[in-house]
Amino acid sequence: MSVTPLSKPETEILTPKKRGIQYVFFFGGGKAEGNGKMKDELGGKGAGLAEMTNAGLPVPPGFTIQTEACREYMRTSGVSEEIHSQMLAALEHLEKLQGQKLGKGENPLLVSVRSGAKFSMPGMMDTILNLGLNDESVKSLARKSSNERFAYDSYRRLIQMFGNVVLDISKHEFDEVFDGQKKKRGVKLDTELTAEDLQEIIAQYKQVVRKHAGRDFPQVPIEQLAMARDAVFRSWNNDRAKVYRRINNISDDLGTAVNVQAMVFGNMGETSGTGVGFTRNPANGAKEFYGEFLMNAQGEDVVAGIRTPVPINELQKQMPQVYDQLREITSRLEKHYRDVQDFEFTIQDGKLYMLQTRNGKRTGRAAVRIAIDMVNERLIKPEEAIFRVDPNQIYDLLVPKLDESKGNVEVLARGLPASPGAAVGQIVFTANDAVAFAGTGASKKPVILVRGETTPEDIHGMEVAAGILTSRGGMTSHAAVVTRGMGKCCVAGAGDVEVDEKKKEMRVGAVTLKEGDWLSLDGTTGRVIKGRLGTVPASPDDPDLKTLMGWSEPFRKLGVRANADIPRDAIQARAFGAEGIGLCRTEHMFFAEDRIPHMQAMILARTVEERKAALDKLLPMQRADFEGVFRAMDGFPVTIRLLDPPLHEFLPRREELMVDIAKLEIQDSNSPKLKKNRELLRRVEELHEINPMLGHRGCRLGITYPEISEMQVRAIFEAAVNVSKEGVKVIPEIMIPLVSMFKEMANQGSIVRRVAAQVFKEKDATVAYLTGTMIELPRACTVADEIATEAEFFSFGTNDLTQTTYGFSRDDIGKFLPSYIERGILKHDPFATIDTEGVGQLMKMAVEKGRKGRSNVKLGICGEHGGDPASVEFCHQIGLNYVSCSPFRVLTARLAAAQAGASDQLKGEGGRTK
Amino acid sequence: MSVTPLSKPETEILTPKKRGIQYVFFFGGGKAEGNGKMKDELGGKGAGLAEMTNAGLPVPPGFTIQTEACREYMRTSGVSEEIHSQMLAALEHLEKLQGQKLGKGENPLLVSVRSGAKFSMPGMMDTILNLGLNDESVKSLARKSSNERFAYDSYRRLIQMFGNVVLDISKHEFDEVFDGQKKKRGVKLDTELTAEDLQEIIAQYKQVVRKHAGRDFPQVPIEQLAMARDAVFRSWNNDRAKVYRRINNISDDLGTAVNVQAMVFGNMGETSGTGVGFTRNPANGAKEFYGEFLMNAQGEDVVAGIRTPVPINELQKQMPQVYDQLREITSRLEKHYRDVQDFEFTIQDGKLYMLQTRNGKRTGRAAVRIAIDMVNERLIKPEEAIFRVDPNQIYDLLVPKLDESKGNVEVLARGLPASPGAAVGQIVFTANDAVAFAGTGASKKPVILVRGETTPEDIHGMEVAAGILTSRGGMTSHAAVVTRGMGKCCVAGAGDVEVDEKKKEMRVGAVTLKEGDWLSLDGTTGRVIKGRLGTVPASPDDPDLKTLMGWSEPFRKLGVRANADIPRDAIQARAFGAEGIGLCRTEHMFFAEDRIPHMQAMILARTVEERKAALDKLLPMQRADFEGVFRAMDGFPVTIRLLDPPLHEFLPRREELMVDIAKLEIQDSNSPKLKKNRELLRRVEELHEINPMLGHRGCRLGITYPEISEMQVRAIFEAAVNVSKEGVKVIPEIMIPLVSMFKEMANQGSIVRRVAAQVFKEKDATVAYLTGTMIELPRACTVADEIATEAEFFSFGTNDLTQTTYGFSRDDIGKFLPSYIERGILKHDPFATIDTEGVGQLMKMAVEKGRKGRSNVKLGICGEHGGDPASVEFCHQIGLNYVSCSPFRVLTARLAAAQAGASDQLKGEGGRTK
Repeated sequence: MSVTPLSKPETEILTPKKRGIQYVFFFGGGKAEGNGKMKDELGGKGAGLAEMTNAGLPVPPGFTIQTEACREYMRTSGVSEEIHSQMLAALEHLEKLQGQKLGKGENPLLVSVRSGAKFSMPGMMDTILNLGLNDESVKSLARKSSNERFAYDSYRRLIQMFGNVVLDISKHEFDEVFDGQKKKRGVKLDTELTAEDLQEIIAQYKQVVRKHAGRDFPQVPIEQLAMARDAVFRSWNNDRAKVYRRINNISDDLGTAVNVQAMVFGNMGETSGTGVGFTRNPANGAKEFYGEFLMNAQGEDVVAGIRTPVPINELQKQMPQVYDQLREITSRLEKHYRDVQDFEFTIQDGKLYMLQTRNGKRTGRAAVRIAIDMVNERLIKPEEAIFRVDPNQIYDLLVPKLDESKGNVEVLARGLPASPGAAVGQIVFTANDAVAFAGTGASKKPVILVRGETTPEDIHGMEVAAGILTSRGGMTSHAAVVTRGMGKCCVAGAGDVEVDEKKKEMRVGAVTLKEGDWLSLDGTTGRVIKGRLGTVPASPDDPDLKTLMGWSEPFRKLGVRANADIPRDAIQARAFGAEGIGLCRTEHMFFAEDRIPHMQAMILARTVEERKAALDKLLPMQRADFEGVFRAMDGFPVTIRLLDPPLHEFLPRREELMVDIAKLEIQDSNSPKLKKNRELLRRVEELHEINPMLGHRGCRLGITYPEISEMQVRAIFEAAVNVSKEGVKVIPEIMIPLVSMFKEMANQGSIVRRVAAQVFKEKDATVAYLTGTMIELPRACTVADEIATEAEFFSFGTNDLTQTTYGFSRDDIGKFLPSYIERGILKHDPFATIDTEGVGQLMKMAVEKGRKGRSNVKLGICGEHGGDPASVEFCHQIGLNYVSCSPFRVLTARLAAAQAGASDQLKGEGGRTK
Repeated sequence: MSVTPLSKPETEILTPKKRGIQYVFFFGGGKAEGNGKMKDELGGKGAGLAEMTNAGLPVPPGFTIQTEACREYMRTSGVSEEIHSQMLAALEHLEKLQGQKLGKGENPLLVSVRSGAKFSMPGMMDTILNLGLNDESVKSLARKSSNERFAYDSYRRLIQMFGNVVLDISKHEFDEVFDGQKKKRGVKLDTELTAEDLQEIIAQYKQVVRKHAGRDFPQVPIEQLAMARDAVFRSWNNDRAKVYRRINNISDDLGTAVNVQAMVFGNMGETSGTGVGFTRNPANGAKEFYGEFLMNAQGEDVVAGIRTPVPINELQKQMPQVYDQLREITSRLEKHYRDVQDFEFTIQDGKLYMLQTRNGKRTGRAAVRIAIDMVNERLIKPEEAIFRVDPNQIYDLLVPKLDESKGNVEVLARGLPASPGAAVGQIVFTANDAVAFAGTGASKKPVILVRGETTPEDIHGMEVAAGILTSRGGMTSHAAVVTRGMGKCCVAGAGDVEVDEKKKEMRVGAVTLKEGDWLSLDGTTGRVIKGRLGTVPASPDDPDLKTLMGWSEPFRKLGVRANADIPRDAIQARAFGAEGIGLCRTEHMFFAEDRIPHMQAMILARTVEERKAALDKLLPMQRADFEGVFRAMDGFPVTIRLLDPPLHEFLPRREELMVDIAKLEIQDSNSPKLKKNRELLRRVEELHEINPMLGHRGCRLGITYPEISEMQVRAIFEAAVNVSKEGVKVIPEIMIPLVSMFKEMANQGSIVRRVAAQVFKEKDATVAYLTGTMIELPRACTVADEIATEAEFFSFGTNDLTQTTYGFSRDDIGKFLPSYIERGILKHDPFATIDTEGVGQLMKMAVEKGRKGRSNVKLGICGEHGGDPASVEFCHQIGLNYVSCSPFRVLTARLAAAQAGASDQLKGEGGRTK
């Protein structure tokens, strides 16, 4: 047996072998080595600078060190000779072009060093300005600018930024010195400090550097530059950047480019200034020049909010020519890029310089508005417009928002933005209290249900609540999933909130809120806000949205259905354009207050007869439910899943019973309740499972208790025939859950056919229907060909398929998911976006085998992923017929499906039927 | 959207389209239409009768209706015209050959109707004798045999058997009549009843039939035959047969043949008789003519135990010629079949008839003995001998047995034969009591630990117990798995046993046993026996076993390792020929009494520092464990799995804490224990998981708490270097559990390499090692190519892989598995034998991809399946390098692997390296 230890270090595997790479790209003097398309190499900012330079716009010259250098830096924790010498060559070129030397001579070259990744990460990366200044060159600058104060202010800014970003010294240390000097001089504004004051500050800053970095501030300009470059590389992995990437699904492997650019100064006096802007309003999309600026300031002042900037139309009054030039340039840029531009500019001594341009981020509402306007302006075509809106942003148009314009916004805690929108109400701590407190009719009060975590037993409380707050659970916890389904605001997993159900209060630090206190939730950001804010309503019938959806629809190949359990949700889903119900969960009907006693009687039954008696009571209720859903979906298919959850979910909790019994044994040992509880506990113990997710549920219930399936199937077909006789077109699709074997499908399928035939005979009418299964277990994928001989449709239950493929419990993943994402082991929550590599591979296998077993097997998805754009695209690629998602996700799914279809058309690929 | 209801009934899919089948095969007059190889069609009995007929042996003629007819009967609940007419033709042929008519004339033909499936199912199927008798033919028989008593006795037997088997009337009804008549006549023995008595009984029997079957006993012989035939078909699905098939892994789809054969009578007087025998002793394998017989009796009397039969050597005295003829015939049969024969014979009026011959069932001990003897006798070759022992039977040679020869065996209850062997001891109800009660040293007492179910916390009690009895849990419950690993007797899931831990007693019906009462367990059959039986010890160094294993070894391609956590198990495993340890579970070491406090301190730690301090205390203990294991496995690889179970397994149970707290709140609200428990509960709640199997465990622990992996890896390498310096050859293989992604493997692999390098540097010595992973999640199979770039070996964890592939929780499957097996949805427990279709498909995928990622990746299996012969064969087929199983399964696995290798050689297939 041969045993060889691994000799290669892990990193080597990842190291590409590249030689002769161009690491540094110059721009300036009217032309650039790069261009706007090279975002992979130059980052967004660098590509923009190159493109603007090539377009002849006034851009301070410089060079970009490309992202591969950053990736090498991350792998080797250093910069190669090759990169360094390419940088020196570019610097020399820049010095020649400018006729200056970096930090030397009477007219020293100063540069800015900025990060710039492929995807914009605003405020996430660090920047250093005025690099090249030292004890000597600051004097030259003072002389050359004839502005001593400006020169020393620039120098102290450099030391401060460099100290913080490169040498990792807390900003606070510098602020203390700066504020101390202001205090000492008895002034309020920074601008009131004199050149002498600033020199004193510089002296103290240097001491701060020496004390905290254990070295002097570097006086050699080239050393400053090299250190700044490396710091930008390192900043790729600072915490802010990592968090931003995680939230925005940006790969950790990309790295950032470094832009080194000749400084221009907005703080050279009253004819200098700096500003940022958008070519259109990024909040509402209005076609208006939008931005703000500050005279005699550097960009950092605008971004950091130290001074309050002025609306950009003021510039028109102050410097009309510059304003006109800026409008002309940005308007050209918008036309060039054919999208809204987010730009930065600086005015130095009355001369305008463009420092950055990029496609502007915008709200969902603005995205839709702008896309439509640009089509009307013939800037883009409708088929391009549909790509200008992130399908996830559609949500923005459908949910209310907190009105933060009035009053004080006191953020108590932050949780996960589990279900977007806003909710304002009085807090309650149990589902029953929610129902009692909320009341009904005209006197109905808005309540916020606050729970440690919610369970299916809380459904009635969640239904009446305006919003839900939980202290535990993730983006796919029960609360999150159910509220998203309801289109109801939810903040989940707010760890700082301590929920005390007994005392009916919640505590956050020193703040305690009691039942009835007002709370405002922002489900879009995850904020928990004390008190009662107002809300701004949503506009579901937005005409812009209709226009955009109208353009997108012809490209869509995938059908889009909704997951809906009750008529109200079904009606909502149709309003959003759902073409059927892809998942109607029959068990949700059983949690209703008037039904759970019968459900419990069914479970506690000792004989088949007793069980059937309890089921007989449930039958008319289920039938009525289905009638309502069928009517709502007239003409569209309705996929009804037979009972899925383990039966113990319908009984009181085991540990609560145990505690009750222990108490009663001490306090009231003759209580009839004790006897009853003991009996109940016996049954609960019998049903207790270590891993309920993998337990006695799904079709396993229907197989061991066929009478349950029989009742449900009977309710479905009685409802179908009844409603069909009213003239409604009913298309039921019966779905068997959790099938892993052909024989399970055959067993339940034969019940469906037998009971259907019975009902048709009794009622002397028939209804066409399909029988199929959820594909939600890996084994089902491996034998999908056999299963398809019995199943007329498959619906991928990707929630459970993800659970079993990874071996991740959705309920428990919160214990390690944050750690996994932080360490880059997972890029995102696999319950939010389909893991195409693993889960997706099994899905593809099931699709291929399924079609082998039955060429026309209908294929859909009804897991939470059905409403996630990336997952919708994957479903399109593997050739599903439809996706199904929560009603409030239908528009998102429709747009995502249309984008996938349109992409195919661009690639010249063929279509498929829904 | 097209909607088509399923039109085909489910059964049609399964119906083969066959025409022109020969359903009936005749034998008699020296030749048969069938032969001994046609067991699929004729069943074992029918094939044997055909073979014996062809060999010229004295066999009563008749015909066999083949198994396809039974399968058709099961599908259509009826017999086709074709089958019926083929049967009538065969009957006519038989009548002609015998010169008799069925149940007609002065010399009526009487026949027996017996079942006969492909695999012998002794006592499981029903038989009808004397068919053809009716109110008329009984008179002819009386006249012809000149024995009125014999004729009426035969008739009443027919009515009784027919009534019971065909008409489903309880035997009890007939017994009541029969015993009533004996009582009335004041006789004790059946034989004391006269012909008149029997006629009276017949009259009453007919009334019983009329009353309970609602029809008369059929007088038309051909109607009797058709009804009997159908009853045999139906008997295939009686409960006994189904249970037998389930236990013996026989497919429910095979069906049984029906043998119709001219009657010969062993009860025609004192020169008639009947008997059964074996050509060798089936209990110990001794080469001796073995059997028993009864004169003047029918076969049913022998089988039913109504009269006590006589050892066969008595026959030599009573009828020497018949005895010699029988010995000659059976000896010919043994030579012909080249295996021990289990035969039935009847002597009618001094003439010998052979009624059946088949390969005899034997104990494991006998199987080995006989195989060796037959090689020595040159009947078979060594390479055939190794197939003569079912690998599962090896176990028989390794475990003690109950000595049932003395005293009264009172079976209290039956459970699952979870871990074979015998155990006799005094009962205790908690692990702590087991330890206390058992004591140590010379005064050590044998105890039986009785639990509802066991958990990892019971390990210390299980270790000291002689045997384990649980009232819940299946063949793969914790108790079952752990005891099989220990080679310790266990009866699991004895549902009739009510365990009252509080009162320290167990109840079975009216019987109550208290702590200290004696109990005997038979883990081989699952019997729970009251009182104190003796035991017969095992002989692990059996010379026969060594001979057989010696023959088998050259054929074995698969390596065989053992799963062992402690040196004692490792030594045991080596004694059985294990070639390494395939799974050393480090967590089992943590449950020891002196370690669990440190483990708990580690879990309860609030900071990394606290956690490291606790781990530092565990380090020397783990190192010592590994040193012991390495020493025991000198020269062989040891695969050590890093910590796998979720941390809450090491803490008190949540619900118990909750109950304790509730009680203390009432009774002693100032107790410091209350405060402590509340704190503990807080942490337990934090760690609580809904589905622990899919929770924070495996490599997820090592990733979130890298210090745990670091401690374990350090302990391994310190131990390896230390022991290596002693001159021991150490080959550690570090196994990362529950990997589903490349990055998980890379993360933990880098810890292993880093810590190994540290230790090697510190100790100035190196040890060659491998780093690999368990493949136990479907996702790992789908990305095995990527994982293999980091993992040097894969070990299939088929327990968890089966759990996740099927979505079955091993702990909870007992809730529906019996129902699944009863309904034929599952053929056997997928945790016992690998599901080759689903789980196996993923394994094959992992093997292929794994080799793609790393051509020499070492492949093994360490799930429970590694000791199951069918699974071992599958592992051989898909090309694994080794299997690993519990020490007491090593011989089984070795033999199974050799059989797989030898089968390959027979097919001319190539080999592979271990």
